[in-house]
Amino acid sequence: MKEYWSDRIRNLAPYTAGEQPRDMKYIKLNTNENPYPPSPRAIEAIRANSDASLRLYPDPGCTDMKKAICEVYGLREEMVFAGNGSDEILALCFLAFFDEKRGVCYPDVTYSFYPVYAALFGARREVIPLNEDFTLPVEKFMGKNMGVLLANPNAPTGLAVGLEDVGRIAAANDAVVVVDEAYVDFGGESALALLDRHPNLLVVRTLSKSCSLAGMRLGWAAGNPNLIAALETVKNSFNSYTLDRLALAAGAAAIRDTDYMKACCAKIIGTRERTARRLRALGFAVTDSRANFLFAGHDRAEDIFKALRARGVLVRYFKQPRIDGYLRISVGTDEEMDAVMEKLEEILKTL
Amino acid sequence: MKEYWSDRIRNLAPYTAGEQPRDMKYIKLNTNENPYPPSPRAIEAIRANSDASLRLYPDPGCTDMKKAICEVYGLREEMVFAGNGSDEILALCFLAFFDEKRGVCYPDVTYSFYPVYAALFGARREVIPLNEDFTLPVEKFMGKNMGVLLANPNAPTGLAVGLEDVGRIAAANDAVVVVDEAYVDFGGESALALLDRHPNLLVVRTLSKSCSLAGMRLGWAAGNPNLIAALETVKNSFNSYTLDRLALAAGAAAIRDTDYMKACCAKIIGTRERTARRLRALGFAVTDSRANFLFAGHDRAEDIFKALRARGVLVRYFKQPRIDGYLRISVGTDEEMDAVMEKLEEILKTL
Repeated sequence: MKEYWSDRIRNLAPYTAGEQPRDMKYIKLNTNENPYPPSPRAIEAIRANSDASLRLYPDPGCTDMKKAICEVYGLREEMVFAGNGSDEILALCFLAFFDEKRGVCYPDVTYSFYPVYAALFGARREVIPLNEDFTLPVEKFMGKNMGVLLANPNAPTGLAVGLEDVGRIAAANDAVVVVDEAYVDFGGESALALLDRHPNLLVVRTLSKSCSLAGMRLGWAAGNPNLIAALETVKNSFNSYTLDRLALAAGAAAIRDTDYMKACCAKIIGTRERTARRLRALGFAVTDSRANFLFAGHDRAEDIFKALRARGVLVRYFKQPRIDGYLRISVGTDEEMDAVMEKLEEILKTL
Repeated sequence: MKEYWSDRIRNLAPYTAGEQPRDMKYIKLNTNENPYPPSPRAIEAIRANSDASLRLYPDPGCTDMKKAICEVYGLREEMVFAGNGSDEILALCFLAFFDEKRGVCYPDVTYSFYPVYAALFGARREVIPLNEDFTLPVEKFMGKNMGVLLANPNAPTGLAVGLEDVGRIAAANDAVVVVDEAYVDFGGESALALLDRHPNLLVVRTLSKSCSLAGMRLGWAAGNPNLIAALETVKNSFNSYTLDRLALAAGAAAIRDTDYMKACCAKIIGTRERTARRLRALGFAVTDSRANFLFAGHDRAEDIFKALRARGVLVRYFKQPRIDGYLRISVGTDEEMDAVMEKLEEILKTL
């Protein structure tokens, strides 16, 4: 049946995204979307650009979006890359930096797309187990002399590692260290502060979470110009125009509207902490999440996952070693979380 | 300087896109954009979707866009793939079908992105020269037992090959034959009609040209479900959500508005033929283009290219063997082409 398929994809098991129901009858807490709408300025920017100019190719250099990033984060343009979501940027990192010769290591419980990239692009990989309590065994990522890929805060555990440890890992490896900061705006510390000291450090960001733009596919990366040049080389050998005109306009506007983003994140952090306390009170083991989701352990996690779904609540359950006793619950609005807590109380009575 | 770069990209020469000036002071005939705006229905669809729903991930299955393609082209959904521009789809084709073992052949004068994909993804390749008059040496693409990649109509020559020849090439190779039909709506014959007969045939399309949506990055492919499954496997191992919500909405609406697309193409074809006659009258050797550009030969092509640029007209000039005596001139509106012809007459007097 796989006639004509290249050997490199015959045994590939693609990434499985969380379910995207096409109706809205669910309380959708399964893919870590932001419960608040994007910045009104992003919507305005889209509307202002929805005209005859769409007949023209977008700016392949993503100049205005990069300018916005430089303004807000104090970076120089040659230190910044823009891509079609951080997923695309991570894929391009594999093409640019990791291969059979120079491999990559990452923890065993982390974003489940990493092993898929490694398999697709034939990168040698080493998987390093997290500690028993899901914290990062920092020493084990030192002196590897291979690439390192860390989500910080990590998913689905929610745990963050401090900047000092990120710096130690970057200093102790003569290869690219990618820090995937998809969730950093919800309470992590950004390694952007370390870029001047570590020419091998690359920070990857997304607008899907804190900027409420998952639907527009926007990500960016920052690092030494040498690393950015590698990403540009790969991008321009793959698809010169990965970001469309409306994504670029929305991205620049959303990035510049930092007050709006921070206000949304503050609300989500408040809701997260309130919900964590209530989950603990119900008997869940809840990690100290710095992300926009909670990672909640329970003996009957799978049953609870199914019961929530039957009651119209989607959360994420990973049937895989070490974490099959946990649920990953995205933080919604206070109202949504109240509704979920009520349903959980009901469910726990019936188990 | 290329410390940390993977060997696979150290010697990579990326694709060079035509210049995208960020002001509009030029008559821009260098990247084969459509001079007419996108369908008003596409703009409406974008506006209708520019709301709070952008906080949610897009539909990774691109269901509605695929449905539109099936309705208009009489295909079944499992025969259709959607991607972030046809450039992305072509790149995914290399990952899915062409590698060191099963190589790919393509003509020597064609879309200059093909050799870049081959280099990036390490596909073995064979380059087969076009005939002296730029027609395709069909026999030479038969019995290769390697992949084949053909732009039809071809770029930058504008020449098209008939369906019978495409069918012969597909039948005579036990590997995937990709037909890049970016320009087919301007006068080519589509190999969609051959899909039922050839399980190894894949047709790749774009909305950048005939649908005036270069700015939204939309492409699609059609072929046997086995080939489509390979592309889905690669996509979901690379970036599950390559098309954003607004691109998907615009794409579905533009595809359904076939009358609008056909009316734009008819105008462009009329302008193309009128301009071809005038260019020939000025002494240019003009191929029989079935695309939205003209390929016009002249001893002083490079000088004319520069002189046009100095007069505010951008066309494309490729300083490479066989075609360095030609200009590729996108077909604009009648008014734009009248202005260009006037400038050309002036320039030719001064050479």
